[in-house]
Parts: sequence; C-alpha cells; structure tokens
Amino acid sequence: MDAQEEDQTVIRNDDLPYPIVVSTNIRPPLRQFLREARRFVVLCDANVAKRAHALTAGIKGRLGVLPFALGERRKTLGTLEHIFDALAEAGAERTTTVVGVGGGVASDLFGLAAALYVRGVPYAHVATTLVAMVDAAIGGKTGVNLRAGKNLAGTFVDPRAVFCDVEALQTLPYRHLREGLAEMVKHGVIEGGDVFEALETLAPHAFWRWPWETVIADSLKVKTMIVNDDRLEAGARELLNLGHTFAHAFERAGRYRVSHGAGVAVGLRAAGLLALRLGRWSEAEHFRMLALLALLRLPLLVEEDPAAVLAAMRVDKKKRDGELRFVVPRSLGDVETGVRASDRTVMRVLERCVTVPDESEFW
Amino acid sequence: MDAQEEDQTVIRNDDLPYPIVVSTNIRPPLRQFLREARRFVVLCDANVAKRAHALTAGIKGRLGVLPFALGERRKTLGTLEHIFDALAEAGAERTTTVVGVGGGVASDLFGLAAALYVRGVPYAHVATTLVAMVDAAIGGKTGVNLRAGKNLAGTFVDPRAVFCDVEALQTLPYRHLREGLAEMVKHGVIEGGDVFEALETLAPHAFWRWPWETVIADSLKVKTMIVNDDRLEAGARELLNLGHTFAHAFERAGRYRVSHGAGVAVGLRAAGLLALRLGRWSEAEHFRMLALLALLRLPLLVEEDPAAVLAAMRVDKKKRDGELRFVVPRSLGDVETGVRASDRTVMRVLERCVTVPDESEFW
Repeated sequence: MDAQEEDQTVIRNDDLPYPIVVSTNIRPPLRQFLREARRFVVLCDANVAKRAHALTAGIKGRLGVLPFALGERRKTLGTLEHIFDALAEAGAERTTTVVGVGGGVASDLFGLAAALYVRGVPYAHVATTLVAMVDAAIGGKTGVNLRAGKNLAGTFVDPRAVFCDVEALQTLPYRHLREGLAEMVKHGVIEGGDVFEALETLAPHAFWRWPWETVIADSLKVKTMIVNDDRLEAGARELLNLGHTFAHAFERAGRYRVSHGAGVAVGLRAAGLLALRLGRWSEAEHFRMLALLALLRLPLLVEEDPAAVLAAMRVDKKKRDGELRFVVPRSLGDVETGVRASDRTVMRVLERCVTVPDESEFW
Repeated sequence: MDAQEEDQTVIRNDDLPYPIVVSTNIRPPLRQFLREARRFVVLCDANVAKRAHALTAGIKGRLGVLPFALGERRKTLGTLEHIFDALAEAGAERTTTVVGVGGGVASDLFGLAAALYVRGVPYAHVATTLVAMVDAAIGGKTGVNLRAGKNLAGTFVDPRAVFCDVEALQTLPYRHLREGLAEMVKHGVIEGGDVFEALETLAPHAFWRWPWETVIADSLKVKTMIVNDDRLEAGARELLNLGHTFAHAFERAGRYRVSHGAGVAVGLRAAGLLALRLGRWSEAEHFRMLALLALLRLPLLVEEDPAAVLAAMRVDKKKRDGELRFVVPRSLGDVETGVRASDRTVMRVLERCVTVPDESEFW
C-alpha cells in the first residue's frame, strides 16, 4: 500500500515560510509531518469528523479528534471559547501541535484558536474544501465575525504546513465548490495568462474530469506569490481584494444570505463595471470574464437593495480614513488597487448588479 | 504651564522596540505621541474614566473615550466582544490608534483587542496601577482567562508606547499597590544588587516618600532587559516566572480569592523553600527576602489546601510535556529555570506555605 501511495502526485509549494502540499493522497505527507510533532490534537468541522479520524488514525501522540459544528454563523468568539475549553480539556500544551481539518471557516477559527491558545501553539491545516485550498487556508489570515461585520477580529499567523486534501472534494456538493471557483476566477484575472486560460479551457468540462491537483496548485500559487511579498497586508496583498469590497457589502446588506462565493462572483463583475466606467478596462475582457463566471455557473446578479449595499460598504474594514477605495482590473493579468470612485458612480454600478426578486412571490 | 510641565522628571526606557515613559506628569509626552496619530480611540477601565478623559482632552482626532467595567473576573472573551463592538461603533479603522488606560487587566484586554481588531491596530497603554507599570503593560503579553485557567488565551504584541502615569498611584488603595510590590520584589530577587537593596532601604518608609519614578523605572528595566532577549518566551523570559508556578496554583486552588500579588509573594517564599530543600540557596538570603516581603506587608501564607494547590499546578500552562518545572533562586541576582522537583518535595513546601483558617470561624 505504501508503494501505491507514493505513486500519487504530490505538488509542493514553498513560496511561503511553510510548505503547502497538494495531493489526492494526502495521508503520507501528513503522516510524515505529524510524526515530527510529539503530541497533537485534531480540531475538525463535524462534517468531516470521519475523515479527520481516518487521516490521523494510528499516529503516535494524538491526544484527540475534537469535532465542532461550524458554519459562517458560528464563526464567533463564543465558538472560539468552546474550542479553547476543548483544547484545555484534551490536555493541549504549548508544545502540542494543533491540526485543523475543514474548510474556510475551520481554518479561520482553528487557526485563530491555535494562535491564541496559551499565546500560540504550532498549527497545521488540512483543507477539505476548494475555497480553503485556494484561498482561506493560505496566507495566515484568521478571524471571527463580529456584530459589526465579518472577520473584524483576528490575526495573521503562519501555520507550520497546509495540506490540500484534494480527495475530499469528491464529497462536496456544487454549492461548496462554487465558493472556491469564484476565488479561482479572481486569481485568474489577477494573474492572467495560463491561469485564466486553464479555467476557460476546463470550464465546459465536468468537474470530475478536471486535473484538480494542478489547477489548485496553480491557483493558490497566485496567492502565495502575492502574500509572500506582503505578509501583513501593507500593500500588494490588497490585490487579492479584487471584487471583495463589493462582495462583503453584498453579504452584509443581505445579512449573509448571499454566500461569499456568490458575492465574489458578482463582486468581480461589479469591479469590472466600475473599471469600465472609469475607462480603465476593455469590454472585450469584461465579457470574457463574465463568460467564464457564467460557464462555471457562478451568479452575475444578486437580489439586494443597491442603497443598502452602498451603506454596507461604508463600514467595511478596508476603507481607510473614511474613504472608499476599490481594486479594479485594467486587463487580464493587470489589476490596480486604491482606486477611488464617487458614491454616484458606485451606485450606477450596483444598480446593474442587482436583480429584483421574482414578482410571483408578491402575488 | 508648559514650562512647569517640562520641569518634571521624565524617565524613558528604550530597551524594547517601543519607548516606555515614566513620569508623574505624563501628559506632555502622551500628547506628543497622540499628535502623531491621526485618529485615536481611548479604551479605559471605568474606574479611571475621568483620568482618561482629562489626559486626552483637547487632542485632535479623538474618536471617543470608551469606559468598561473590568476586574479579573471580567477578563473574558465576552468582555473582548463588547470592546470590539464599541470600537466598531466608534468608527475605529485599521489606521486608528487604540489607547488603553488602566491597570493589568486593562492592558491584557485592551492590548488583545487592539491586536485582533481588524487584525491589528496600533496600540499604546497608559498604565495607572503599579503592577501594570512594572509588569503587566511591559513585554507585550495580552490575554483573557478561560474556564480552564487564567491567561490561557492571548497573544504577544508590541505596543507603540507605554506610559507609566505615576501620579495615578496616589489614588490607589494599598491592596492595589501590593499587586505591583510583589512583582518588584521578584525583580529585586532576579536582579539582586541595587534593585533589591533599594527596596530594602525604602520598605520601612511611607509610600508617599518613595521616589516612585526611579523605583518604577529601575524595576521595569529588569523586565525589559529579559524580555528584549526573549520576546516570544522561548527561554530566558522564563526567569520572570519566579514564584509564579506557585502563585498561579494558589490563585486557581482558591478560585481567585487569593489576589495575584498575594500569590506571588507567597510564591516567592515557596520558590525559596523549594530552593532550600534542593540545596540551591542559603537560609540567610531566604530570610532576607522574607523580611522584605513582610516589611512591604505582603503575605507569607495562604489559606489553601496543599493537595488542591498541587493539583492546580498540574494544569498550569507552564508545564511542558507533562512535567512540572520550577524557577528557583540560587542567590539574590541569580535565578535558575527548569528545575524539576518530585511531587513529594513540592507538597512539603506547600504545607509550610499554608495556614489553616482561624478556628474561631468554626465556633
């Protein structure tokens, strides 16, 4: 069995101070990593508890596999407290490695818990969703939501390693995959070239035919290159907010009925529309981006009140000294940050991104 | 008035990457610092709200002075959430400086809030209690208490500046002063020489006669020198835990009826007793330390069950890989870390630190 396991593809990214390992057979590299930790505790999303058990079974030093009911609405300080209590109960100490297993919410919460528990224990994440693999688990951002907004409290922390458990994707429904696909399109627009074109080529094909390991490794590399230049989000990392000022506002205005992936997809379109209005990018590339989003069955419209979306933007944490700034595309592979726009221009863009609810609901 | 203000002593410590300013007239250096921050929010312990207002009145860019009812029992994630909500409501953004005003609980909580709010905003602390000046506000440790123990969640973060508001000490009752005095004796034992002898010389005198600025500056320098060598508590910083493995256990076993200062005082005695048993230090120096503690009206005994104290030690976060280690004095100015002791030896020590409650209570 070991020989067979070794045959599988393992792609390793070393752009950041920690390795990111992508494989459909993540067990051997994960085991190797955990054998070096003397003791470890596994924190997992309850949805992947079985997988978390299986991946870490029989490795010496496992103090426990602790499942938590997660979800965006549970990304709170209250859940964080449950995690801390469970870590203490399991006997986790300063030298105990914490392994988080799950998607983006899991990496945000478990990473933050590990950063703060006894003021910091070693952390590794096993990403089981596409969005965690290409985005959430990469770059060291952790956080919880506050009443005032998403991810308003958190920290930057480098994990010891990230494992992208590509096999786990097979069990995901499309709505989960969509969260990651939106970020992959974003990376495609930022990087342009092969990264964008690979998505265009694959989009019409069934997901089971995609060469996921390569596609994931190429997409997350866009993020690792940017993050490596700007670990504390002082400048270049702002590029990764392409579409996100809009996305966060759609989510906030809709009280998070709008998923982040849907928000990002419409947010990319909005950023493109804004860039068009400001004379910064071409219709040809705009429609090419929309076509890719549509082929991936990502939405281009949301059902929200434009005025409420604009108001939500004003409390977004990315505004600086009271002024709204945007990240907009100039061409595929060339994105501009810190672009100002008047409220009137932004409203024009928002009005085109909004659909009214089906009238039949009112009859 | 400015001329008069300038006359007052201002002692500045630059051992760490941020300045620590000690003065009975902290207003001018604080104002100078805040003038460089474009916007700032003041978080304060409700007990010093008036002082927080006065110190920061009339400085441009003040978004608000937000008071919180604090205290060790309120050093929780729940209070942290209130602080986050208040920061968001006040309009704090990434570039907004947060100024915390208060004692040790304030510096732990407000420092952590600033470290996590929108993943980190600049922080400065105005220390108004002795323990905050010589210990809690120095060194970048922040934290909250969990059900499983004190300070079990937190982080290390460098503030931009610390201001020791010596004038504020005048308003403190002795029990507050005591919290700081215990840590000052600890620093005296670690450093020996002048730092210990200055305390011996001053101890018999009324507190209002003490040259507080110098005494505080000399005491906190012991900590800044050690912390500067070991910012992330990998090694040398362990010295500062002298007396603390015992202190934390007294506090835990007594469900925090024992104050930290009292715990540290008895903990220093316990560390000395342990060192004596292990043949590591002299009776002469032990009694000299006890005399100083007693002259400062610090306790030498606690009312706790020794077995409960030992049990509490076992869950202390300082144990490593299941083994209890202690910091013990070898002589004044020479302290040893990582000293192991059998449970039996520790019990012998604990039995001598414990007093039975006055019998009259039972009649």
